Amino acid sequence: MKKLLLVFATICVAFSCFAQDDEAIPIEKIWGVNVNPDNTVTFRFRDRNADYVVVKGDMGKYPMTKGEDNVWTVTTPHSLNGGFYEYFFIVDDVMMPDPSNYYSTQSSGIVYSNFIVPGEKGDLYSVQDVPHGTLSHVWYHSDKLGMDRMLNIYTPAGYEDGHKKLPVLYLLHGSSQFDNAWIQSGRMVQIMDNLIAQGKAEPMIVVMPNGNRQLQAAPGFDTFNLTYQAQTRKYLTKTNNGEWEAAFPEIVKYIDKHYRTIAKKKGRAITGLSMGGAMSTIISANYPDMFDYVGCFSCFPMGRGETADNLYEKIKYQLTKKTPKWYYHTCGPADELYPQVQKFWKDVEDMGIEFEHEEKGVGHDWFTWRMDLTDFVQKIFKD
Amino acid sequence: MKKLLLVFATICVAFSCFAQDDEAIPIEKIWGVNVNPDNTVTFRFRDRNADYVVVKGDMGKYPMTKGEDNVWTVTTPHSLNGGFYEYFFIVDDVMMPDPSNYYSTQSSGIVYSNFIVPGEKGDLYSVQDVPHGTLSHVWYHSDKLGMDRMLNIYTPAGYEDGHKKLPVLYLLHGSSQFDNAWIQSGRMVQIMDNLIAQGKAEPMIVVMPNGNRQLQAAPGFDTFNLTYQAQTRKYLTKTNNGEWEAAFPEIVKYIDKHYRTIAKKKGRAITGLSMGGAMSTIISANYPDMFDYVGCFSCFPMGRGETADNLYEKIKYQLTKKTPKWYYHTCGPADELYPQVQKFWKDVEDMGIEFEHEEKGVGHDWFTWRMDLTDFVQKIFKD
Repeated sequence: MKKLLLVFATICVAFSCFAQDDEAIPIEKIWGVNVNPDNTVTFRFRDRNADYVVVKGDMGKYPMTKGEDNVWTVTTPHSLNGGFYEYFFIVDDVMMPDPSNYYSTQSSGIVYSNFIVPGEKGDLYSVQDVPHGTLSHVWYHSDKLGMDRMLNIYTPAGYEDGHKKLPVLYLLHGSSQFDNAWIQSGRMVQIMDNLIAQGKAEPMIVVMPNGNRQLQAAPGFDTFNLTYQAQTRKYLTKTNNGEWEAAFPEIVKYIDKHYRTIAKKKGRAITGLSMGGAMSTIISANYPDMFDYVGCFSCFPMGRGETADNLYEKIKYQLTKKTPKWYYHTCGPADELYPQVQKFWKDVEDMGIEFEHEEKGVGHDWFTWRMDLTDFVQKIFKD
Repeated sequence: MKKLLLVFATICVAFSCFAQDDEAIPIEKIWGVNVNPDNTVTFRFRDRNADYVVVKGDMGKYPMTKGEDNVWTVTTPHSLNGGFYEYFFIVDDVMMPDPSNYYSTQSSGIVYSNFIVPGEKGDLYSVQDVPHGTLSHVWYHSDKLGMDRMLNIYTPAGYEDGHKKLPVLYLLHGSSQFDNAWIQSGRMVQIMDNLIAQGKAEPMIVVMPNGNRQLQAAPGFDTFNLTYQAQTRKYLTKTNNGEWEAAFPEIVKYIDKHYRTIAKKKGRAITGLSMGGAMSTIISANYPDMFDYVGCFSCFPMGRGETADNLYEKIKYQLTKKTPKWYYHTCGPADELYPQVQKFWKDVEDMGIEFEHEEKGVGHDWFTWRMDLTDFVQKIFKD
């Protein structure tokens, strides 16, 4: 009897849900984020039962107020600067992206929703009516890593119809990120299109590989398919063992074979953020004839198959005997890695090596890295 | 005083939110969907206050039960067939995608979360360890439409290193969709990679333009940037006026110029779903020497700058005087457009024209269209 009652209760619940579904409001109709004409931003989230709803992101953190139709709202108390913003809601004790927003980015396991505020940086990070480059997702085979792997390749506007050889920037993502990070969170396509159109950056090819040793490509694009997410940690165990860095020349070889490149040191730059910056430092130290421009954003080189002493010797050799045209490290003062980064800078300088480094940006965040990329690409391949 | 109290209250709310934030659980830790070893699927959603939570999608609709830690769960009562699934949650009276799932697709204004169940179709729609083609996002200039526009172009594995000329399939999306629809919801890259690797489809180039007259590219990739969503309807007013179809030869010209194509009727196919199928029908009727393979999934041609009488005459001429190798229309019996589709089929046959059409699939949905594409590409360019 008890069982029968349970079955009946279940049917009732199911039925009541079907009835309620007809009243369910597609979330697209509850417009989650709106940039107002004065560049304040209004957020909305519909929830009839929550105790509290908060919006948090690059613009700060604001509690929201429940109003008509159970829609929680808040408008930022001041205008926001032009830029690309990430945000999420906190609904009771749960973080979630804006369910009404098409645009999301993923970084270090968190899904963010996005909006753009027009103005200086916002304009730079937006698709403008300028000539657009091509973005391609290409597969190459790595003999050393024993697998096919994806490369994301940006070629500047006009490449398809041109004949000129172009320089190449190798652009590396950070830990817990993927080969699409600079495209999605980094807005690299828009930054490159806009800076090249303005004559501020040289037309260049940009190559973005996946820096995780055991992954072929970003989640959803490799053979882990949509089961990747739960297994992140499991499949990243070999990422820091140095094999990836040792296999890097295969990528350069592939690019020089398949694209119209200036296949020389003077036509190559490498940089990256955090783990990707460490990789840039290590790869360029191990192949000192390969890159004339080396950058490192929010990073200090560590481990990755190198002992510190060994690496410092290689960097000394690279900077004194093979002098790259530009060797540049940067870090924001609020970056949690800054003490370690400063130690690295000091260690190198203690070897008597001059070396350009700069405290710049804010923290260990995309707000900083987008600016780092913007500045870096305006200074390379100029001579 | 009242104002002061309000300020104080606001500070309290803000402070209390900061305190609560420390307890907020990143949603990634509440694993939203899990395909179990027996191919049942378990869904989870955390909400401490909701009256009810339901999961709805291609697998059906199930009320969820609140358990420990305020996590609502349900497991499908039976194993699911292999395939690619879309789902969303209904939380009280609001629809939302799974906030813990990286993978989402957008179709007709709704954001869905996704999972894959292994097995026949699931395997076909998955990234397998086979040679992979390249997917490129390329811009061309349309003189007739007066704007730069994006093309998504798939070239099969080996294209970069080959010399052989290849046939081209032009693949068109539906209304309220964008040029990335066949890539995201349609899984076309995986379908093509896998069928070509199995020898079931010929290596071919696939070109996916944006079929909305006033859009350069999908939301986020055109100059509307991230403001697009609210303005969908506003900017789609000209989409059905026939200008887009009239400008189509510009795309074919661009592709034949920049890719190693078989630049003849026998080397070209065109198909699409819903609006895209209507476009395929109209474009191929207007340019009867352009395509030897014409498909139309879940569609009937209507309006788009053509009167019915005029279009029927053109189709009659196309099918009787210019005989394409394969002219094929299909529609699912549960498709809401099926009565109109059947009328179109009858109208054409009433002109005394034989014409291949088939009741196939289910409704007006991606479950059907993925199968339609799978079948279509195995039959074209075989001779």
